[in-house]
Amino acid sequence: MSRITMVGAGMMASALSVPLRYNGHQVRIVGTPLDEEIIARLKADSFHPTLKRRLPDGVEYYSCSQLETAMAGADLLIGGVSSFGVDWFMENIIPVIPDSLPVLSVTKGMQDQPDGTMLSYPELYRASTTRPISFNAIGGPCTSYELADMDPTEVTFCGWDSTLLRSLKSLFETPFYHISLSTDVRGVECAVALKNAYALAVSLAVGLSYVREGREFEHYNSQAALFGQSVREMQGLLTLCGEKASNLHLGVGDLYVTVFGGRTRKIGILLGEGVPYAEAMERLSGVTLESVVITERMARAVRRLDARGIARAADYPLLMHIDSLITGGQRVSIPWAEFEQETFV
Amino acid sequence: MSRITMVGAGMMASALSVPLRYNGHQVRIVGTPLDEEIIARLKADSFHPTLKRRLPDGVEYYSCSQLETAMAGADLLIGGVSSFGVDWFMENIIPVIPDSLPVLSVTKGMQDQPDGTMLSYPELYRASTTRPISFNAIGGPCTSYELADMDPTEVTFCGWDSTLLRSLKSLFETPFYHISLSTDVRGVECAVALKNAYALAVSLAVGLSYVREGREFEHYNSQAALFGQSVREMQGLLTLCGEKASNLHLGVGDLYVTVFGGRTRKIGILLGEGVPYAEAMERLSGVTLESVVITERMARAVRRLDARGIARAADYPLLMHIDSLITGGQRVSIPWAEFEQETFV
Repeated sequence: MSRITMVGAGMMASALSVPLRYNGHQVRIVGTPLDEEIIARLKADSFHPTLKRRLPDGVEYYSCSQLETAMAGADLLIGGVSSFGVDWFMENIIPVIPDSLPVLSVTKGMQDQPDGTMLSYPELYRASTTRPISFNAIGGPCTSYELADMDPTEVTFCGWDSTLLRSLKSLFETPFYHISLSTDVRGVECAVALKNAYALAVSLAVGLSYVREGREFEHYNSQAALFGQSVREMQGLLTLCGEKASNLHLGVGDLYVTVFGGRTRKIGILLGEGVPYAEAMERLSGVTLESVVITERMARAVRRLDARGIARAADYPLLMHIDSLITGGQRVSIPWAEFEQETFV
Repeated sequence: MSRITMVGAGMMASALSVPLRYNGHQVRIVGTPLDEEIIARLKADSFHPTLKRRLPDGVEYYSCSQLETAMAGADLLIGGVSSFGVDWFMENIIPVIPDSLPVLSVTKGMQDQPDGTMLSYPELYRASTTRPISFNAIGGPCTSYELADMDPTEVTFCGWDSTLLRSLKSLFETPFYHISLSTDVRGVECAVALKNAYALAVSLAVGLSYVREGREFEHYNSQAALFGQSVREMQGLLTLCGEKASNLHLGVGDLYVTVFGGRTRKIGILLGEGVPYAEAMERLSGVTLESVVITERMARAVRRLDARGIARAADYPLLMHIDSLITGGQRVSIPWAEFEQETFV
């Protein structure tokens, strides 16, 4: 039995308590300052109000002020914040993590640098401290609901220490939670971050088809066209990001699962229906949209790399289009002609 | 205006009459000996009984015995047979095609050779005759229903003559039918053929989730895991097939659209529910299953390449599993552990 402390009571971290408790580990969930209500409810009856499931018996719940108690004797700390909580995590949590306590982060996203370089959160965490804390992360297709329901799931744990990765895997591996390992941290993180941007892009086709034919019917040719274009652009962006191994299938699997549900699909459909971004965001008020963050950052990085002669923004017409919807306030108009290729070999 | 003659009144060829008539071309559809009923109905009221749509006004219909009349003055011949009609097409049609009449084929599939080499149908057609007929093919994500409904669609025309490809594109391109071009015939054809095998594989997860939780609910984590694994194996198989350009996104877009409908999904769900292959085929009697054909052929090719030391069958655990269901009569049991990777770079 190991002791795992989670910081952040979001859906994904909370769902990880399912494989961990299945394996008999001790699990402590510490809410961020934004999680007070969730923690109060979990303490009352183990029901997670946004995950909409009871967490397993035996999980212990702590408020943020009890962080030190919750970390005492822990073998692993799970960083369970969304990308909107990354700064808070770096300022408030990393400084108090013991050197010997490894971190496994569920946060998906990348941060662009002024020169167009994209950095993963484990890289940012590592750069934020001089102490030798081991930062690792989980990537791959996994919705929190379905992990909580024990639907068979395959993810990838990434980090720089292959021995530690194997030991992390031994904590989590169950008959319904399967784990690959990779030391290509940036490649894995880039692949799974990109899927949020492109899931929004594919969902545009759903909205466009609703406008043409009503909401009862969903067309797939146009979704598949945008899905294929997404795969092509993701392949290029992974290379631009400097991945070391081939991680495309991780991002594509994750893209597949993200198209089918949740907030990214909702915003994509609204934008596809021609709703301007500002109004779409109003309608979805209160939701955190990783897809919007990564789209803006990745598009900005591509433009900077284009200016430096390292990339061609024209190679990413779908990314540029969704960025124009989000940051430029434009209305949807899929640039079909720009997707057409001539490949004469 | 050009004159296009189609041989085969199947759903995909018939749906191509929509962009062609949209562009004002003359379209003649010639049924194969198996299409007599379809042609009779089309002659009566333009309704295509399996496509379940009326074809555009102005399309002309011919029975197989009128082939010569229907080909007179044609600028393009569309090969509209399924992979089950390829031999018939090579024996009966190719010998009577004039040298100067280019062929555009919609047939998806590959044929394995005794040494494990996979050949595309355009390659087989070219090898079947000494005459200089230009063989070309259409790949990419496109369901016939949605093309007939003018849902925006993106496909790739492949062939060896880039000038001819551009002229073919000019016949078909419409605001709802977008066309990329490629001279990597085998790569394009392999990518889009593979999607049939892997669409069956992804659909297994749907059946498995039905068994666990009933038919009202569909899980996506497990589908996404199989989708990601499919992408990884497709990437390897494309390399094995000897693709010259990167065609993965074509196959993946096509995989996406194929998972959502039709016969391949049906057989995959049945196999996923634990129904033995023989019984599943009985339940789906009368349907042509390209997915079964390509799975058997591709798995056999991989085993032969493995025996020759060129490939490792263990790198394709999902393909090997669906082949064991089809040719070995085994029951579904997803080899999750075999999907797990260690990528230490």
